[in-house]
Amino acid sequence: MTVRQLSLPELAKGLVELGVPGVGLWREPVAAHGLAATARLVRDAGLRVTTLCRGGFFTAEEPAERAAALDDNRAALDEAAELGTDTLVLVSGGLPPGSRDLFGARERIADALAELLPHAAERGVRLAIEPLHPMYAADRCVVSSLDQALALAGRFPAERVGVVVDTYHLWWDDRVADGIARAGAEGRIHSFQLADWTTPLPEGVLNGRGQIGDGAVDFRWFDREVRAAGYTGPVEVELFNEGLWARDGLEVLAETVARYRAHAL
Amino acid sequence: MTVRQLSLPELAKGLVELGVPGVGLWREPVAAHGLAATARLVRDAGLRVTTLCRGGFFTAEEPAERAAALDDNRAALDEAAELGTDTLVLVSGGLPPGSRDLFGARERIADALAELLPHAAERGVRLAIEPLHPMYAADRCVVSSLDQALALAGRFPAERVGVVVDTYHLWWDDRVADGIARAGAEGRIHSFQLADWTTPLPEGVLNGRGQIGDGAVDFRWFDREVRAAGYTGPVEVELFNEGLWARDGLEVLAETVARYRAHAL
Repeated sequence: MTVRQLSLPELAKGLVELGVPGVGLWREPVAAHGLAATARLVRDAGLRVTTLCRGGFFTAEEPAERAAALDDNRAALDEAAELGTDTLVLVSGGLPPGSRDLFGARERIADALAELLPHAAERGVRLAIEPLHPMYAADRCVVSSLDQALALAGRFPAERVGVVVDTYHLWWDDRVADGIARAGAEGRIHSFQLADWTTPLPEGVLNGRGQIGDGAVDFRWFDREVRAAGYTGPVEVELFNEGLWARDGLEVLAETVARYRAHAL
Repeated sequence: MTVRQLSLPELAKGLVELGVPGVGLWREPVAAHGLAATARLVRDAGLRVTTLCRGGFFTAEEPAERAAALDDNRAALDEAAELGTDTLVLVSGGLPPGSRDLFGARERIADALAELLPHAAERGVRLAIEPLHPMYAADRCVVSSLDQALALAGRFPAERVGVVVDTYHLWWDDRVADGIARAGAEGRIHSFQLADWTTPLPEGVLNGRGQIGDGAVDFRWFDREVRAAGYTGPVEVELFNEGLWARDGLEVLAETVARYRAHAL
């Protein structure tokens, strides 16, 4: 999504040229390019698919809506398996319209995870709960802290349900070091994602994630913490940024790699 | 600030007519109307000034900037005393430009509080640390949770340094019930403020606080928690909302009282 202006073949070629060994994919561009074609493309390019984004949206109260969400997540698990990634990132869902019941919404997430577990196990794909910044609690994700994500994940086996550590969502939280240490000890850090926090936030607060190094996040601190917690997996850079999307995609890709090396290693 | 389109005399008259016994004031309109004139106005109207907003911005690293901030806070304490309120609300400040050191910024807040304490005691005014929503951590306030605010306040006597419980900033946090209980037990709930959480957030995320009842906040839950924690002080409604500011101020004032009665009592 960092360079969504690129087609998947352009992206794969650009990554290989830059020496980037893997890529996190979103379902929409995969569907547009074709699932089998995408699987072939990344395999032929020698790229590892680090994660598939995203499943989730588990908080609906309506039975039909809830059943549709679960079906969609089963489809996402199938897609993840076909792409050869072991991790499906979950954006768990916000409050249903008119609801003010955060507790109930969080419990419905746990119920949905329990229902998905057999299918996830069958496909060999892990469910990675991503705590989103608290500014998304109402409309996107009622899981707002690493502690909450771990409390949910902790009800299930670590090899099946874990968490995403994303700097954009967690950088402000003085409890995050403890959370990362605990997540690592439990074997539940299933993904590590980077984005910087820049202000002012844009309307709707979705597409203002800063390029690495432009904002308030101390990436070296995060990198140190996740490694100290035992994480040895891939590092993803996931930027939703209108400014970056308006630029030449390959230039942004190269800049992102350079910024990562300058600020996060 | 909820009805900043009203002059202070219009506001005072409107509040009295609605049977509202007090008002939280901001320094800018007080300065514009004149400090002595405002003190007289509210006294003559029989209104209690519940809090003065705001002091703070303690996180500067530059000595001159830091000294200026402390002077400004001493002036704010003087103004609070003259207005007859016992509480100065603090917006503690964000990260200095280019800094990524949240811990250091939070320590500078504690240092500033220690320096202000004698003056606050002399004026009989309490310093109330307001945790702001984590989306303001970079540019307005590095104190993002009630736990953090209590950790800071806890270094000082409760009758001098406490916290603000503002629903807008804290509604998403599953630790807030514990925080409220602890704050109450320590005698540190110095102010209780209401605003609703509505989406989408506007650009800059400052002026999108929802009218009571329009959003995701469970006000009765908060009211029950602060009362169970022993709070018996005033309840303030503080809305920064371009839509409300564009309307007739007295109409918004009456609507706010009605919404409070319908949703928060």
